Amino acid sequence: MPKPLILVTNDDGITAPGLRHLIRYMSGLGEVVVVAPDSPQSGMGHAITLDNTLYSKKVVIDREAGAPREFSCSGTPADCVKLALQEILPRRPDLCVSGINHGSNSSINVIYSGTMSAAIEAGIEGVPAIGFSLCDYSWEADFKPCAEAVKTIAAETLKNGLPDGVVLNVNIPATNGVPPRGIRVCRQARANWKERFDKRTNPNGKDYYWLTGEFELLDKGEDTDEWALAHDLVSVVPVQFDLTAHHAIQPISNWKLYE
Amino acid sequence: MPKPLILVTNDDGITAPGLRHLIRYMSGLGEVVVVAPDSPQSGMGHAITLDNTLYSKKVVIDREAGAPREFSCSGTPADCVKLALQEILPRRPDLCVSGINHGSNSSINVIYSGTMSAAIEAGIEGVPAIGFSLCDYSWEADFKPCAEAVKTIAAETLKNGLPDGVVLNVNIPATNGVPPRGIRVCRQARANWKERFDKRTNPNGKDYYWLTGEFELLDKGEDTDEWALAHDLVSVVPVQFDLTAHHAIQPISNWKLYE
Repeated sequence: MPKPLILVTNDDGITAPGLRHLIRYMSGLGEVVVVAPDSPQSGMGHAITLDNTLYSKKVVIDREAGAPREFSCSGTPADCVKLALQEILPRRPDLCVSGINHGSNSSINVIYSGTMSAAIEAGIEGVPAIGFSLCDYSWEADFKPCAEAVKTIAAETLKNGLPDGVVLNVNIPATNGVPPRGIRVCRQARANWKERFDKRTNPNGKDYYWLTGEFELLDKGEDTDEWALAHDLVSVVPVQFDLTAHHAIQPISNWKLYE
Repeated sequence: MPKPLILVTNDDGITAPGLRHLIRYMSGLGEVVVVAPDSPQSGMGHAITLDNTLYSKKVVIDREAGAPREFSCSGTPADCVKLALQEILPRRPDLCVSGINHGSNSSINVIYSGTMSAAIEAGIEGVPAIGFSLCDYSWEADFKPCAEAVKTIAAETLKNGLPDGVVLNVNIPATNGVPPRGIRVCRQARANWKERFDKRTNPNGKDYYWLTGEFELLDKGEDTDEWALAHDLVSVVPVQFDLTAHHAIQPISNWKLYE
């Protein structure tokens, strides 16, 4: 039997330490091909490149990391997955993994996440997919304690597959050098960002803003990703891209619309 | 009682004809404030501007259109909503409407949609919100047949509110000058894009790609947005931003993970 083919991508860019670690962890599970953005794409959501050209080139970043085939791409994470599936990969991959993101994509952050947009894009194409994120924004974050959890979740996904229309959003707590206490399958916590715009004036007298904000957890449930992370557990949220709020169809059908 | 405050935005940019029509339709329902991107943002998904500056300025585009207050913003649709809620609006709006998009955001297109990202951003902040799209990509599209459906859905949303965590994705069929046959509340159809990359060589000998593709409907249901649109009905899909695939939590919990 041939080794599983694993597509590795991310949104922090092809040289990001989180991606380099993910490549190493995946090289033990299958044949790795990397197609990742040539520059950081954080906060890109599910953007795709419609009215601009896309460039892609074969690159060699790190010959030690299992010597995978690697391609950089000028587009977004979703672009990378589309290009990989249509143009670069020799066959349909058995798994797509995205990350390991430098920073959390738990709860409402999934909406803004380039890491998860890559996983969702693969899921739309029917490829089992996982987004991995470490809750540490630093470029020097310590990814080693993630290794076992990342490998376990990827191996189980290869073995079991995923339900139709579902991808995994995996977040890993920052645990100061020791491995997380365990892995918990859970739901997305309700949360939002209390935004604050830092208003400044540029040297030419023109006002501009920086977007800043504080995370606000609105959910006390013990079955959420935020609860798991706060208890040093890896959170695994099954995520769907059918956004229909099925429970809302009936009440809204009772409005005075016309047909 | 003060008139409802209505935030109007879009992803095609502040001068787009679809936005100008939406402003006129909303001016009959309340006090309109426009905060929209200064340039087209199609396909931006739920991108936000994290590592770049945001500019915003008061503009006057069209004095005839109910003379609303208008602000252009250098950011994405989601940025526009964040900036409007935190910095520009005098109070919390009663409704946020986004569009009218030049082109469909039905079925899987909701995932890539800047129009819907603005509505979802407002929904995350607890503001009732609707994304409107006309299934005609032309800049000269005829928006007049949309008027009654758009006004009816916005008025009913103002009157009834929306369930917690739900926004509306409204798509309007292109019906050759006559109004759509009716309005149908429905679910998101399963679909994807069969991508094709058009590979070319630039004048300097470097290969590049254009992303193209064909829409592929994978769903024969008569309760979907695609079915409604194919039958000249306006589709109204209630959309949620809790992406949890609740049905998948139990089966995945049975995997050999550790805790």
